[in-house]
Amino acid sequence: MRDARCRVVVEHVDPEIDAGRFPIKRTAGERVVVEADVFAEGHDELACVLLHRPAGQAKWREAPMRPLVNDRWRGEFVVGAPGHHVYTVEGWVDHFHTWVRDLVRRLEAGQDVTIDLRIGAELVSAAAGRARGADAARLRDHARALTGAAGEQRALSVELADLMARHPDRCDATRYERELEVLVDRERARFGAWYELFPRSASPVAGRHGTFRDVEARLPYVAGMGFDVLYLPPIHPIGRTFRKGRNNAVQCDPTDPGSPWAIGGPEGGHKAVNPELGTLEDFRRLVRAAEKHGLEVAMDIAFQASPDHPYVQEHPEWFRHRPDGAIQYAENPPKKYQDIYPFDFECEDWRALWQELHSVFEFWIEQGVRIFRVDNPHTKPFAFWEWVIREVRDRHPDVILLSEAFTRPRVMQRLAKLGFDQSYTYFAWRNEAWELREYLTELTRTQVREYMRPSLWTNTQDILTETLQTGGRAASALRFVLAATLGASYGIFGPSFELVEVTPLTPGREEYLNSEKYQVRHWDLDRPGSLRPLITKVNRLRREHRALQQDRTLRFLKTDNERLLAYAKSDENGGRAILVVVNLDPRWKQSGWVEVPVRARAGHPPYRVDDVLNDRGFTWRTDSWNYVELDPADTPAHIVQLPRPLVPEGSIGR
Amino acid sequence: MRDARCRVVVEHVDPEIDAGRFPIKRTAGERVVVEADVFAEGHDELACVLLHRPAGQAKWREAPMRPLVNDRWRGEFVVGAPGHHVYTVEGWVDHFHTWVRDLVRRLEAGQDVTIDLRIGAELVSAAAGRARGADAARLRDHARALTGAAGEQRALSVELADLMARHPDRCDATRYERELEVLVDRERARFGAWYELFPRSASPVAGRHGTFRDVEARLPYVAGMGFDVLYLPPIHPIGRTFRKGRNNAVQCDPTDPGSPWAIGGPEGGHKAVNPELGTLEDFRRLVRAAEKHGLEVAMDIAFQASPDHPYVQEHPEWFRHRPDGAIQYAENPPKKYQDIYPFDFECEDWRALWQELHSVFEFWIEQGVRIFRVDNPHTKPFAFWEWVIREVRDRHPDVILLSEAFTRPRVMQRLAKLGFDQSYTYFAWRNEAWELREYLTELTRTQVREYMRPSLWTNTQDILTETLQTGGRAASALRFVLAATLGASYGIFGPSFELVEVTPLTPGREEYLNSEKYQVRHWDLDRPGSLRPLITKVNRLRREHRALQQDRTLRFLKTDNERLLAYAKSDENGGRAILVVVNLDPRWKQSGWVEVPVRARAGHPPYRVDDVLNDRGFTWRTDSWNYVELDPADTPAHIVQLPRPLVPEGSIGR
Repeated sequence: MRDARCRVVVEHVDPEIDAGRFPIKRTAGERVVVEADVFAEGHDELACVLLHRPAGQAKWREAPMRPLVNDRWRGEFVVGAPGHHVYTVEGWVDHFHTWVRDLVRRLEAGQDVTIDLRIGAELVSAAAGRARGADAARLRDHARALTGAAGEQRALSVELADLMARHPDRCDATRYERELEVLVDRERARFGAWYELFPRSASPVAGRHGTFRDVEARLPYVAGMGFDVLYLPPIHPIGRTFRKGRNNAVQCDPTDPGSPWAIGGPEGGHKAVNPELGTLEDFRRLVRAAEKHGLEVAMDIAFQASPDHPYVQEHPEWFRHRPDGAIQYAENPPKKYQDIYPFDFECEDWRALWQELHSVFEFWIEQGVRIFRVDNPHTKPFAFWEWVIREVRDRHPDVILLSEAFTRPRVMQRLAKLGFDQSYTYFAWRNEAWELREYLTELTRTQVREYMRPSLWTNTQDILTETLQTGGRAASALRFVLAATLGASYGIFGPSFELVEVTPLTPGREEYLNSEKYQVRHWDLDRPGSLRPLITKVNRLRREHRALQQDRTLRFLKTDNERLLAYAKSDENGGRAILVVVNLDPRWKQSGWVEVPVRARAGHPPYRVDDVLNDRGFTWRTDSWNYVELDPADTPAHIVQLPRPLVPEGSIGR
Repeated sequence: MRDARCRVVVEHVDPEIDAGRFPIKRTAGERVVVEADVFAEGHDELACVLLHRPAGQAKWREAPMRPLVNDRWRGEFVVGAPGHHVYTVEGWVDHFHTWVRDLVRRLEAGQDVTIDLRIGAELVSAAAGRARGADAARLRDHARALTGAAGEQRALSVELADLMARHPDRCDATRYERELEVLVDRERARFGAWYELFPRSASPVAGRHGTFRDVEARLPYVAGMGFDVLYLPPIHPIGRTFRKGRNNAVQCDPTDPGSPWAIGGPEGGHKAVNPELGTLEDFRRLVRAAEKHGLEVAMDIAFQASPDHPYVQEHPEWFRHRPDGAIQYAENPPKKYQDIYPFDFECEDWRALWQELHSVFEFWIEQGVRIFRVDNPHTKPFAFWEWVIREVRDRHPDVILLSEAFTRPRVMQRLAKLGFDQSYTYFAWRNEAWELREYLTELTRTQVREYMRPSLWTNTQDILTETLQTGGRAASALRFVLAATLGASYGIFGPSFELVEVTPLTPGREEYLNSEKYQVRHWDLDRPGSLRPLITKVNRLRREHRALQQDRTLRFLKTDNERLLAYAKSDENGGRAILVVVNLDPRWKQSGWVEVPVRARAGHPPYRVDDVLNDRGFTWRTDSWNYVELDPADTPAHIVQLPRPLVPEGSIGR
């Protein structure tokens, strides 16, 4: 038998991921809006609060919850500093509220309420017993007065209602059966523009291997475009055995630098720096210099080894061995990657291996790194990531981890649930309006948004999409605007991207010709046609407009031309919105009508809007449909600041 | 650190109610189709089984699960006898399957596989170690052969694949973290036609109080119409204090019999029989006689007391007391129900009260009753119902409980989750086509169907809807067809219903004039216009067609006239469907086109269908839209047996 006295049910708390198995995610200062079904048998009035606290603290804070419809209640709180936060819901029968409600009905029916006032006085006396000081005295006074001459008036006193709300009888309250967790990140986990470059291609002198010092010299260029994060591929010594040549050739020239993801050589492994790039001190200096430019350096974490990695000699037990005694190289049959040995995360000595890999994070955190882009996490066990991310974050709540998993949806989602703060997405391959609407809606409007923060990349060293290959400069421009305005977090791989370097290794494949992955490149950053001005402008708009700094308010608008994609973002307080219309056709001018449902009375006069991307103005009509025309030769998009809030979704016809 | 070896994730198992807090429901012999997301990191092949067993047994049975798309797997099992059944899901990495897959790729690429065959031989040897007898010997033979001359052929041997599937390595398998429960009922919980009557109105002699013997004489009439369950309002002694008069009058005549829900008098309480109806032995005789007619007697359980109930004297502590010492009567302010005392389920002595109420069920089960219609369960604590239903069902798995809760959706759903086998619904108030589509879709196609079995009532002693009051005989006829074909379980309150007795107490209220709740009525069952022939015919069709015996396959079809509601049910094996078209307009003939998406090639010749309700035939066209015309003066509906299965939903445009 359950105790008869706990009558209230609290269920279907939202957000809640997989019955509380995983935390939701927020950044410091963000709201958490919580809903729950709270009800009891019968017709008594209930009261309900949202309980929340930082994970370390014992004492709950309380936020009120208000009834919506259909026994659904809602409350909210704001999370503080990075770390973990917990929340849950508590509800109880509000006997006093029920009593007042019924008393009013009785009075309206002209019934005698003498007995009822005595019942009320008992409720108030009991509350006096729970209260202290002045409140207790006032409650005692009210209890006396209820059975007196003016009892009926006293029953409806606002002061009494407030006092009773302050001292509720919660001994029979029902607490939701689970405490739910919020993983709180710093703001950069939600909002940031990433720029990836290969340090070895940063030399101003053609043919010379670039260094950390060269990257330092490149900082004004990157920061000048308005980026927030500078992501470097692995900076460690590169293996020699089976080193890949230019354009991924199986044989390499002695001068070929190899793929930086073949980590480890005689000079060291995951905690060492490739001497051709400089010293560890040079790297620390770069991190500090970047900071002065408002840039954070993000490192690559690729947990695999070249055959020349010190681990191979020191810990052969951390690798899988074939029946002939050789260490098993990476493969995706029939493809072989003999320059790479995967770790055997399930080996007998897995605990020591996991500890060592954890120490890699700690080592670079000591050098000042706080952002890591994790290579192929979907080929390492989920249990490892859950463990290592907890270990890292418990010590360093400001660390941000980006999951580079391009794989099946459930696996990508699982990695996000396990603690990765950001996730690469399929964005690069979503080109049509319906694809973008469907995919971004899934990411920003379904439960996925509670645990997975999308990072939208136009390209990477491994991804040169067909759209970019074939669409010319206009395609790169429109894909850039999409990434930077659909996604609060986005990235480009430069300088290839801004210089519109789009020649593939072979047509139909997504790889770059003469990829920096396998060779040193030299770039003329001033070459004509660079997207640098567009990028600079859009990144400035991102910093100016809070609406563009989050994804939760993303909302697609109707157009009558499927080549025009229209969407809006408001800031979380529902204030002024930014509207973006992108011409998805890189070749031809497209025109059509876009629904812009601003709040205005019918018959309101036309209003002026500013296209803050192109520094132009338009006069729009308040009856919501407006004409748009975009020529890719001129501009990929309008980015319009709306002078009024949008009409809430669902309140206009579809 | 979690063990590195459990790499597989099993999540999002469906069906699962509230993280496994509540069971799903099935009847004996029904299928349970289970799906789950099952995946691991990387690209290994997985294997997956559905585990299930009756709750009492230790040993799991296994059913295979097959991959669908997107890491989703599906399997199914059939539940046996009434009681509780449990199920869960287990998945593991199938190293042998992975190995064969990769071997084929290597062979197709012309690679040397000597080492790979040795790896395979190790896998097969390990399986031999897990096997016994002949299997072990064969596996050892295969292991040897794999490294021999014909190893490549042997690797792809079907016998080897079967042997390896029989002896998988499951030591690192992941079992889903919860065991989920199925509450298995007997068939009547899913499928049955209920007939409610007041025994006191069953006398063949006008003015005489009816008895159980009179009900016995009425059995051929009820059974002849094809009903399965005969539901009787409370049969206990009725209180005298504050007894209600005819038409719910506050004052009663000395001859008024009172409401049977005012339970308890000097003759006894919930375990006694109203002497005016007969003796306990008469009641037992009725139960047995009903059985001979294929009818089960359902009793009313109303946990409340009249002021004259023996409990009031013997256990005043089970009731709430007012400050003046009086026992608190039932009320819904400002309405007072002074003839009824609710129990105080939260009283100090609640354990004894709950035990006593449990004993009421046991008492009537001993008299042969197995079906209970529970009055107003939503005014008693959820914890009580969860406890008492478990107690009853653990001893008597064949008991069926119908929840009479007309209240907010969450409360009704909670009662169903707690164990009520059937639930009254809002059906009586859903009249328009869109309302019926929306509501029945919620009940039969969403998760609600896993735990809540709807019981559709045309009317009850308390519900005479405006539609019935104003629509004449045709309205009653069409509402009957809706109830009996939309719902595998449905009920009518007779003889008012079949005799089209539709005069309200006052217009605009849903109460019957001269309600049997407060007086003895006498009925001329042969009066003209009775719906008896229609009822008899439809109940026969219900017994003949398995499609009408369940709700899970209900599917609405498109019409071009909103007064025509069209729907189909197939049997669960997807066989021949029953199609129903109802004219929702009781006044006017309605005609229109109905989409009937049968499986047929384009250009198939027209086909013949039988309207089994009206014994007519039609020739329909295979291009799916067919003309229908229904005149309420003639028939409320077509009930058509389709000669071909329907095209699966979703495969035709909406």
